Amino acid sequence: MTDFTRTRSLFHMPDGVIYLDGNSLGPLPVAATDRVRSMMSEQWGKQLIRGWNSAGWMAQPRRIGDRVGRLIGAPEGTVVIGDTLSIKVYQALAAALELNSSRRVILSDNGNFPTDLYMAEGLLRSLDRGYQLKIVAPEEVEDAIDATIAVLMLTEVDYRTGRLHDMKALTQKAHAAGALTVWDLAHSAGAIPVDVSGAKADFAVGCTYKYLNGGPGAPAFIYVAPRHADAARPALSGWLGHQAPFAFDLDYRAGAGIERMRVGTPPVIAMAALDAALDVWEGVSMNEVRKASIALADLFIREVEARCPELTLASPRDGDKRGSQVSFRHANGYAIMQALIARGVIGDFRAPDAIRFGFTPLYIGEAEVRAAVDAIEDVVNNRRWDAAEYRKMAVVT
Amino acid sequence: MTDFTRTRSLFHMPDGVIYLDGNSLGPLPVAATDRVRSMMSEQWGKQLIRGWNSAGWMAQPRRIGDRVGRLIGAPEGTVVIGDTLSIKVYQALAAALELNSSRRVILSDNGNFPTDLYMAEGLLRSLDRGYQLKIVAPEEVEDAIDATIAVLMLTEVDYRTGRLHDMKALTQKAHAAGALTVWDLAHSAGAIPVDVSGAKADFAVGCTYKYLNGGPGAPAFIYVAPRHADAARPALSGWLGHQAPFAFDLDYRAGAGIERMRVGTPPVIAMAALDAALDVWEGVSMNEVRKASIALADLFIREVEARCPELTLASPRDGDKRGSQVSFRHANGYAIMQALIARGVIGDFRAPDAIRFGFTPLYIGEAEVRAAVDAIEDVVNNRRWDAAEYRKMAVVT
Repeated sequence: MTDFTRTRSLFHMPDGVIYLDGNSLGPLPVAATDRVRSMMSEQWGKQLIRGWNSAGWMAQPRRIGDRVGRLIGAPEGTVVIGDTLSIKVYQALAAALELNSSRRVILSDNGNFPTDLYMAEGLLRSLDRGYQLKIVAPEEVEDAIDATIAVLMLTEVDYRTGRLHDMKALTQKAHAAGALTVWDLAHSAGAIPVDVSGAKADFAVGCTYKYLNGGPGAPAFIYVAPRHADAARPALSGWLGHQAPFAFDLDYRAGAGIERMRVGTPPVIAMAALDAALDVWEGVSMNEVRKASIALADLFIREVEARCPELTLASPRDGDKRGSQVSFRHANGYAIMQALIARGVIGDFRAPDAIRFGFTPLYIGEAEVRAAVDAIEDVVNNRRWDAAEYRKMAVVT
Repeated sequence: MTDFTRTRSLFHMPDGVIYLDGNSLGPLPVAATDRVRSMMSEQWGKQLIRGWNSAGWMAQPRRIGDRVGRLIGAPEGTVVIGDTLSIKVYQALAAALELNSSRRVILSDNGNFPTDLYMAEGLLRSLDRGYQLKIVAPEEVEDAIDATIAVLMLTEVDYRTGRLHDMKALTQKAHAAGALTVWDLAHSAGAIPVDVSGAKADFAVGCTYKYLNGGPGAPAFIYVAPRHADAARPALSGWLGHQAPFAFDLDYRAGAGIERMRVGTPPVIAMAALDAALDVWEGVSMNEVRKASIALADLFIREVEARCPELTLASPRDGDKRGSQVSFRHANGYAIMQALIARGVIGDFRAPDAIRFGFTPLYIGEAEVRAAVDAIEDVVNNRRWDAAEYRKMAVVT
């Protein structure tokens, strides 16, 4: 049984804050600040350029990739860290399209995070070979998988509602239709048990600043199934994905396996923070996290629905069909969320009308959920918001 | 007159080290560690998701971009920070090719850093429209500019030898031939006076971990000339380059001007270090830096040639035709550099036979140059190296 008292003590949480936005930016792990300071002073400061070898900087993207891999069911040597999620989506989709080059349709849904769709748009425009990006509603995905689809590209957990796609079933159906899959795990990794191997996913990508608590703008990750790793073409063929980066050849030769998904010089300072953040997961059972997160979210839904009749549930009621976040709709959602944030209950708002709350048992428990509902009840039922008072505030998903 | 005593005090330099590798990785600015610690504790730790606005994280890529812009002659609002140099090369080249879409030849030279060529290769393969990457010797570039060239893509300072291209003259010739230019300033920004506006460069990119001292894997920058900024297509069309990222539209609409060259979520922790590193440049005259760096390199060349006849100069002798680094050739270059590093004189080795030294007046002076030459003289003339003793060590350019 995971001891969440222990994991709670591993995060810094400011007084007076109930943080239900770890699905957007995880909180600061207590150990991260010292880890980064030590990386900077002891490694960069003292070892200087030698740190690339002596401090293991060059090997970090693979080493930390394996740590993330353990949380998403990926075997050793199949995950690498770097860049942003947008870039990793581009790499995965470009490689998948080339592996399935006789087809021309990419299937996605309107619950995919927009940057995935934007990156696809840009790639397809560059390719300019009659590709079509077909976007359907999430519930229509399954039926839309047919023999025209080259790649099924989905985010497993809908950023708006928390609705969960069945990765295994959809991948199976895609494969049966001759399509490959690219799964975005942005709201899955660290939130729910993921098994990219068991699901036979072809490519998976994700970010590390949400449930993995790597810090604002922490680098992304990419998984390539071993069966594709040596065949996948790296569209972003940077020197660190080269077979021999330090030979300084004029021609690109893709590195072995997942190495070829590296692009430029790795972000060493950011990776030190991420590495410290991943320590939190040692000894933690993802199944226990999942069980606890469903219990917290169920409690939240029950209490909010009982006490705030003006709010409409926008998330699946069944915990097994939901990621680790819950959204409610209200015409004044934006102002309501601003009022909640002003009193320390931090969730976020997603246009046009959703207020969104993330449940992260590593550092949030029943007491926080109950206190949050008290605040929501007061704000909503007593109209303690004034739309004019709250200036537009952009928050990162 | 720049007071280099002051700037020297702003860097941490370990005892016993003579650091002539700032052209590969700049040393730790004293202020960077606290800046990052404070960003992590005070901003991430306390403001959590609110930091995107309250701490200005979202605006950093532009704000810090302007700081870099001032060092390369770029007007406000024309430079943005993010990703790696490889990614920025890709963006610049893709946009330039589309702006000059009737032509099919990219001209570069074999002194360009390999990742620039690799990224171009990958892009051209994706485009698959009969593009040709023509690579000539650096001294043949000028003559190879003709009316077939779509884009001239060069690194201003050759990473191997320090040979300096004439950015202004080559850009002028390129424009006269109807070509656009992409300049890689990796070994220029912070090393020599650069004037992208005066030279009429179309696109420029660079990294911030060399002469700008941003730390290992610090993010890159891209400049787009104002005349192209609203026409340049972002091939890597990520959400933060969207006109309205938080509208979460399904379709991409490129942001105004340089904004569209943003891709994913910005690396906030790394940018805090870079921001602190850029403080060092306040009140520093780049012309004074340049004068001092030429004097140091001239002294170095003179002394090494006088005392180590086995070493052959691989860099231009004329300081005005050289960046801020000097290379010498020796068949045992690799072992020699390992022996030098073992005694604290840190330069680096570039295959097949070059030992390379960078001169960075912000923190290196005549005393260090003389001490370095003493060590080189002893190592080379007294054969104080043994190739078998030094294991292969990869260093990042």
